[in-house]
Amino acid sequence: MTQNTITADWIAVDWGTSNLRVWAMASSGTVLAEATSDQGMSQLSRDGFEPALLALAGDWIDGPTTVIACGMVGSRQGWVEAPYATVPCATLPAGLVQAPTHHPDLRVHVIPGIKQTNPADVMRGEETQISGFLARNPGWDGVICLPGTHTKWVHISADEVISFQTFMTGELFDTISKQTVLRHSIAADGWDEAAFAEGLDMGLSRPERLAARLFSLRAQGLLNNLSGAAARAQLSGLLIGTELAASKPYWLGQHIAVIGDSSLAKRYVDALATQAAPATQVNASVITLAGLTAAYKRLKG
Amino acid sequence: MTQNTITADWIAVDWGTSNLRVWAMASSGTVLAEATSDQGMSQLSRDGFEPALLALAGDWIDGPTTVIACGMVGSRQGWVEAPYATVPCATLPAGLVQAPTHHPDLRVHVIPGIKQTNPADVMRGEETQISGFLARNPGWDGVICLPGTHTKWVHISADEVISFQTFMTGELFDTISKQTVLRHSIAADGWDEAAFAEGLDMGLSRPERLAARLFSLRAQGLLNNLSGAAARAQLSGLLIGTELAASKPYWLGQHIAVIGDSSLAKRYVDALATQAAPATQVNASVITLAGLTAAYKRLKG
Repeated sequence: MTQNTITADWIAVDWGTSNLRVWAMASSGTVLAEATSDQGMSQLSRDGFEPALLALAGDWIDGPTTVIACGMVGSRQGWVEAPYATVPCATLPAGLVQAPTHHPDLRVHVIPGIKQTNPADVMRGEETQISGFLARNPGWDGVICLPGTHTKWVHISADEVISFQTFMTGELFDTISKQTVLRHSIAADGWDEAAFAEGLDMGLSRPERLAARLFSLRAQGLLNNLSGAAARAQLSGLLIGTELAASKPYWLGQHIAVIGDSSLAKRYVDALATQAAPATQVNASVITLAGLTAAYKRLKG
Repeated sequence: MTQNTITADWIAVDWGTSNLRVWAMASSGTVLAEATSDQGMSQLSRDGFEPALLALAGDWIDGPTTVIACGMVGSRQGWVEAPYATVPCATLPAGLVQAPTHHPDLRVHVIPGIKQTNPADVMRGEETQISGFLARNPGWDGVICLPGTHTKWVHISADEVISFQTFMTGELFDTISKQTVLRHSIAADGWDEAAFAEGLDMGLSRPERLAARLFSLRAQGLLNNLSGAAARAQLSGLLIGTELAASKPYWLGQHIAVIGDSSLAKRYVDALATQAAPATQVNASVITLAGLTAAYKRLKG
């Protein structure tokens, strides 16, 4: 048997719907190792979480070890339900919830999500990214945009989440381009900046016309030979433009940070720039780890 | 072998993406028999159309027989491509296109669809329903709404199609309720009038917020135990309300006819009524047959 080459002082975990990501941490804050797998919440029954974690991080454990986890792991279908905090609330909600374990040295703490009553809304995982961003930018006030399957706009003031709003933009893009009649008109990849800009402008100026513009993409393919790449970019522009029209009360005249390093996040930054709304783009995994570290420090401090 | 009990003077055919419907007609206009199958365009290769038609209507043929067909049968993937007429144009476009046949007595004529260049849009089949409606309501001016997978709004004046606009509302309802995270929140059936009215009002008053309201349906399920039937009705209301907000330049202050006898068509009529826009609801298959009959008469006259 080989010796453990790495022993973690504590373990940071970002556990989403589709993926599991873990970091072996030194108490100094240094990352000793990291690993990922596709054992997201949607793949696992309640009994499957501990084995999935140990499969990635088991070798890092030597003696009692604290694990701090965020994301869908704390949902009703997760390892343990961590009840939502309610806005307005601290970006890092109090009340870590301990998950049941069999391994004698494992102490797993799950960060609660945040909910809003009216309009009804929820987040799990983003609260940790937000607190990581604020840990690195103390005293920052403004609006944070977290692009993704379910893009979130979050109003931050005095280190609290004041309100937030989720848009299903990413999931709509995916579903519309793959599951509707537009699948015949939209390429799986490729891009066209001019088509994106055109869609963005249409979405921003006439957001109510979305369902009509969608069919027009199909008709442009039939009548004008609109390319699959141009249709894809125009659809993305339409959806993001419509979202920016609706989220304007959030971002207008505010400091804006976009969390994410994907090409999608870059598109939000570019789109906001066309509206004279400059946004700072921030690396997501650095920020997530900073948030998990803040939660660990508070637990230990 | 049994004798043919019915011989058609001509045969009327409504051939859509999913279904095939045929009527054995007397030259007087009387319907002698009808039949349907699931052999829609999407099921068939080019060689499959004639056998699919003969499977339903072959027994009605005794001597040279004219067939008048409308719908996706005339698309690029259909039996024969019937090029689009361009708006503004007669509701029943000139230029029936003959489909290639093997049966010696079969004469198949396909009705062309209608296209619009800007905004790009197309219809196939609806033009026949519209001409049927006008055959029964001579001189009618106004706006015709044809609810369905791809709902169409059509501006009619002096027996011409002036312009039209397609909304992917029906397909969005289907895709969003079955293929996104909302599938966990939306029941397969059931209804809630109050939830429909609430969604309709939100869609009409803030149509740009669609993607946010969608996620809110999910959050209301998690936080407020919104029922699956209420979520379904609210989604329908949201999508129809958003469509009515965008199609207002069409329907405001106009005579309105809604073609269709489905519960969906009834919802459009009810929704328009809340906006002080009374609409006449018309049976779809009667109107389709009237349009096919008008095309037959013109061919023979």
